Order: sequence, then structure tokens, then C-alpha cells
Amino acid sequence: MQNRKVRIVGTGKYMPKRRVSDTEMDAALGVPEGWVRKKTKVIERYFIEDETASQMGAKAAYAALEAAGLSFADIDCLVCTSGTMEQPIPCTAALIQEAMGQQQSGVPAFDINSTCLSFVAGLDVMSYMVAAGRYRHVLLVSTEVASKGLNFRHKESAALFGDGAAAVVIGPAEVGQPSQILCAAMETYSAGAHLSEIRGGGSAMPAADYTADAAEHYLFDMRGDAVFRMASQKLPGFLGKLLAGAGCGMDSIKLVVPHQGSAMAMRLLARKLGIPDDRLLCITPDHGNTIAASIPMGLHEAIRGGRIGRGERVLLLGTSAGLSLGGVVLDY
Amino acid sequence: MQNRKVRIVGTGKYMPKRRVSDTEMDAALGVPEGWVRKKTKVIERYFIEDETASQMGAKAAYAALEAAGLSFADIDCLVCTSGTMEQPIPCTAALIQEAMGQQQSGVPAFDINSTCLSFVAGLDVMSYMVAAGRYRHVLLVSTEVASKGLNFRHKESAALFGDGAAAVVIGPAEVGQPSQILCAAMETYSAGAHLSEIRGGGSAMPAADYTADAAEHYLFDMRGDAVFRMASQKLPGFLGKLLAGAGCGMDSIKLVVPHQGSAMAMRLLARKLGIPDDRLLCITPDHGNTIAASIPMGLHEAIRGGRIGRGERVLLLGTSAGLSLGGVVLDY
Repeated sequence: MQNRKVRIVGTGKYMPKRRVSDTEMDAALGVPEGWVRKKTKVIERYFIEDETASQMGAKAAYAALEAAGLSFADIDCLVCTSGTMEQPIPCTAALIQEAMGQQQSGVPAFDINSTCLSFVAGLDVMSYMVAAGRYRHVLLVSTEVASKGLNFRHKESAALFGDGAAAVVIGPAEVGQPSQILCAAMETYSAGAHLSEIRGGGSAMPAADYTADAAEHYLFDMRGDAVFRMASQKLPGFLGKLLAGAGCGMDSIKLVVPHQGSAMAMRLLARKLGIPDDRLLCITPDHGNTIAASIPMGLHEAIRGGRIGRGERVLLLGTSAGLSLGGVVLDY
Repeated sequence: MQNRKVRIVGTGKYMPKRRVSDTEMDAALGVPEGWVRKKTKVIERYFIEDETASQMGAKAAYAALEAAGLSFADIDCLVCTSGTMEQPIPCTAALIQEAMGQQQSGVPAFDINSTCLSFVAGLDVMSYMVAAGRYRHVLLVSTEVASKGLNFRHKESAALFGDGAAAVVIGPAEVGQPSQILCAAMETYSAGAHLSEIRGGGSAMPAADYTADAAEHYLFDMRGDAVFRMASQKLPGFLGKLLAGAGCGMDSIKLVVPHQGSAMAMRLLARKLGIPDDRLLCITPDHGNTIAASIPMGLHEAIRGGRIGRGERVLLLGTSAGLSLGGVVLDY
């Protein structure tokens, strides 16, 4: 069973206080002025200073609750769908519950992680619990601190990322409401597992064994060209199956909300996939790549900007470290 | 909807090559001989040497597939349900897929994390996807490397833990098969979020900022007495609701498979919860606390040892960092 009468009830977003311009990034990376804008199209991204992932997540979560016309008491489950974690223990969802001031609520809190596709995986998985009536309202929170893991010696990837949070409340679609999830899919090809990674900081190379000599292992390392080649090879077949599962063609999709991995790679892939430019949401220039928050943030901007209305068809689509492909076709 | 016609098809386990006796731990912790056995009841635990979490997970996974009479080609989704990760990026499930030699399989791989309750949360969540027919067979893998995060200055907690992996294949219960999940529940009280934690290694205190002075922040820190008090206060009400949801009493439970947090705390709590000693599975003495692998490992041992047969009722129950409580009532 793929079709689920599940509805995106409300969305929210929070960006950290500190805005970092492209020229500030030029200086930080030691490149000529204009290099960051030309290479990445990212004009501004936000980096945390005195904020934490859970604090950002709590703010995005309350914004989503307000948009949904709900309070925390209406939430039955809180899932953190982020690619970065605040602490190794406990899970970030518990820390978000704490940052929301709901320490005694008892609302179940756990994390779902597939790096940049964490939100897509979380929406897919949790919608089955909503459809079955196990939980009525689920709060999905993607809150990402990319800035602490960037390697400024890898200028092309460091220039792409930003911090930020987005949250989405899902619930059952009531009779007469047009909202539904038509189809979702995910594929993982671990042949690409080491094309984007942070090798150090887990059990294989513990934080406690950190040395300055091994510093680069504890920072993000991406072979962007290899990721692009693999994504480019796998995405057309993946998207074809996803649309077939949804029983629709690209022409019925009002808006594609892609993972904002890299503006240029996104446009190239979109052309290859037959997605017209005017139906491809691009929030890269004023957000950068906010890891798993990127797709729900795009969804939030599209809803707020009136680019999608109730009942209109949306395609969420992206790739992540793993290497994974993921997508959801839904009627908002 | 709580009742799901979902079946545990097969289970598997893998312990690392190096066995660490209680007397070896006495020496490592600098305590008198007999101290570890007396304080923790853990006579042997296993620590990795040249193995990784994903390699252990792959071995447990293949053992579970063999027990299920299935091959990897029958698996539709691979979920890593561990409290520790191998690398910050990508998710451990992708690394397990790689370690299984299935790099081109495309089988979706992601992580579900609620520390020691990761398996319980993963079984609960993924059973809805199986019940809905989205995935037929899901492979849940808990693979834990506790040894790299232990603080040997915290002797009482360091003495409790061990490394190891367990895997479970779930699938639909066919007509005529008595297997089902009757009820599952989870509650999180982040008032206890900092009672057991590793503060350093995530975005709040990055691995790249590691200094020897701050070393303790990057290791496990548990206030065992406070965790016990909170668990003791919350568990009776939680279990009452769980059993009510399942529509049964403790007398119909053939075996309780608890999280093997600490043998003594477990027995005390079991008494408070009205669980008779002879229906409480205890694998602590020869495994230690293997974090999220602890419950599926207990389930595996119970099945292999003939303590539960098809159709017999089992209660999985535990607490985790968060602080979370979780449980599942199922007919095996």
C-alpha cells in the first residue's frame, strides 16, 4: 500500500542570527572576491554562534505548530530528521523536546537519519504510523549545524553549506481534504558510501582519539564530481519508477522541491530529468545547502510564497551520502 | 490501529573476537579482583579490536537471514537501530549494506536512533510499513561499539558495557500464522536528557575542537542512581498502559526480554513491576550491556534456547538515554 491519506498540516523555519555573505566567505576561504558567488551561487548562508541545533529546532517546531493551528499538546511523536547530531547521546529529538520546554510531556522522541534525505525518509516512514492511526500528529524537525564540520581547505564544498532548521507537522487528511501522499521511494547504493563522509567522530575513529594530525578525518569530505556522476546515472531510472508508482507524469507536478545540494548540479540534473526551470524550487542563493533541513525548508518557502496550494502536486527529490536517492510525490 | 500482523522471521547475533573477563576488567579499572563481578554481575563482555560496527552488523545480519531462510535479495529495507554510530556521515545502515557486500543492491538504508531503545523504536515504526505492504521484509540491525566511548574513571558504568551486534528480519504474518505485534509504546521525558550522555562529538562540542583537558566530555557519563530513580518512578504507569493497550496481563507473558542495562537495577525494577524472576531473561553475565543490541540479542538467545516458541507472548521492555521508556508486546 503506497497511497496514504496524510497531510502536511503546518511548516516552520528558523535561521541562525548570523548571516554570512558571499564576500565574507571569499575572505574566510582565502579566494578572490566573487569566487564563492560564481562557483556556488550561494550569496548568503547562516552560521550559528551561540545557538545549538536543538534551540534552532525548537524555534522551527513552534513556528510549524503555529502554522498548523496546533499546540504541543496535540503532538503525539517528535522525530528529529537531521543529518548532524548535537551530542552522540542522547538523540537530538530528546534535546529538541527539552529545548521546547516540554521535558515532562512524555512525547516519544527519536531520530531518523539518512544524512541529507533524513526528512524524506522520516516523512515516508512516519506517514504510515499516521495513516494507521497510531499517532495523530507527528512533528518532524530537521535542524542542521553544517558549519562545525566544514573543512575550509575544501573550498568548493565549504562554500556550499549553511546552518538552519525546518519543521513539519503531519496528520491525517480528513474526509473532503485533497491532501495525500501518493508514492515515496528510497534507494541506497553503498558503492558510493565514501564519496561524501565524515570519517572521524564515531566508533571507527573516536572523538577521544582526535589528534591535530588527523584533523581532516573529523571534517566533511566530499568528492562532488563523483557524487554528481553517480546521481546523474541513477536518478533518471529512480524518478521514472517513483512517478510510475504515483501514477502520474512530470506534467502533473506543480513544483519540484529538490535537495539544495549545489545550485549548478541541481539545474543540470533537473534538465536531464525533464523538470522545467520554472517548476524547480531554488532557495540555494539565500540559504546554501542546509543538509536535511534543505527540503522541508524549500517546502516551507514554497507554501509561504504561494507557489503551492492545497491539493496541488509536489515532488520532493534528492540524494544524500550513502549514496541514497529519495523522493516523495504528494498532494499538498 | 495497534495490532499488526507482523512476524519476527529470523534473528542473528555476532560477538567480537576478543572476550574480556571480569578479572581483566578489574585490572583495567584498577579495582580489587572480584569487584566487577560483585558490582555488575558481568562476568564476560566482548570488546572489538580490529573489527568495526558495520562488519559486526553484517555478520549478525547474515545470521538472521540464514535463520529466516532468506537471502539478501528478499530484503526490501535495511534499518540500523543502534545507539552508537560508526562515522558521523554516512549513516551506519549504508556502511552495513557495504560490509554485507551489497553495494549495488539499491536496498534503502537508514538509521533509527533512540540510544538503548533504538531496536524497540525501529521494530515499532517499521512494522507499520510491513503491515501496510510497503516493504515485505525489513532487516533491523543493532551493532554497538560501547568500548570506544567508556570512561574508565567512571568504574561502575565502564564495568557494565560490552560490544556486539544483533539482527532481526521482520515480515508479514501469513494467514494461519499466530505471530503478531499486539501493542507498542514509547515515552520520552527530557527532564532526564542529561542523566546519561556523551556531550562531545556532535555539533554542540565538535570532535574537531577536542582537547585533552576536555577529554571527559567525549566519553559516556551516566548518573546511574538518578536514571534508576526516574525509571523506577515512570515504568509502572508505562507498563500498565502498554499491557492495557495489548489487552492482556503480565500472567499471559511467557517471557520478558528487558534491556540489560544493569543486572541489579533490572531485577529490582522487575520486582516492582510484578515480573517473576523465572520469566525475566537475563543475559547480562555473559554479554554485559550492549546498548541497543541488548534487547534483540536477548530475543535471539530466548528463541535459540527454546524459551519462547511460535505464538508465545513476549514483552520487550527498556529505558534509554533521553530519558525514554519503550516496550512491545508481541506473539512470537
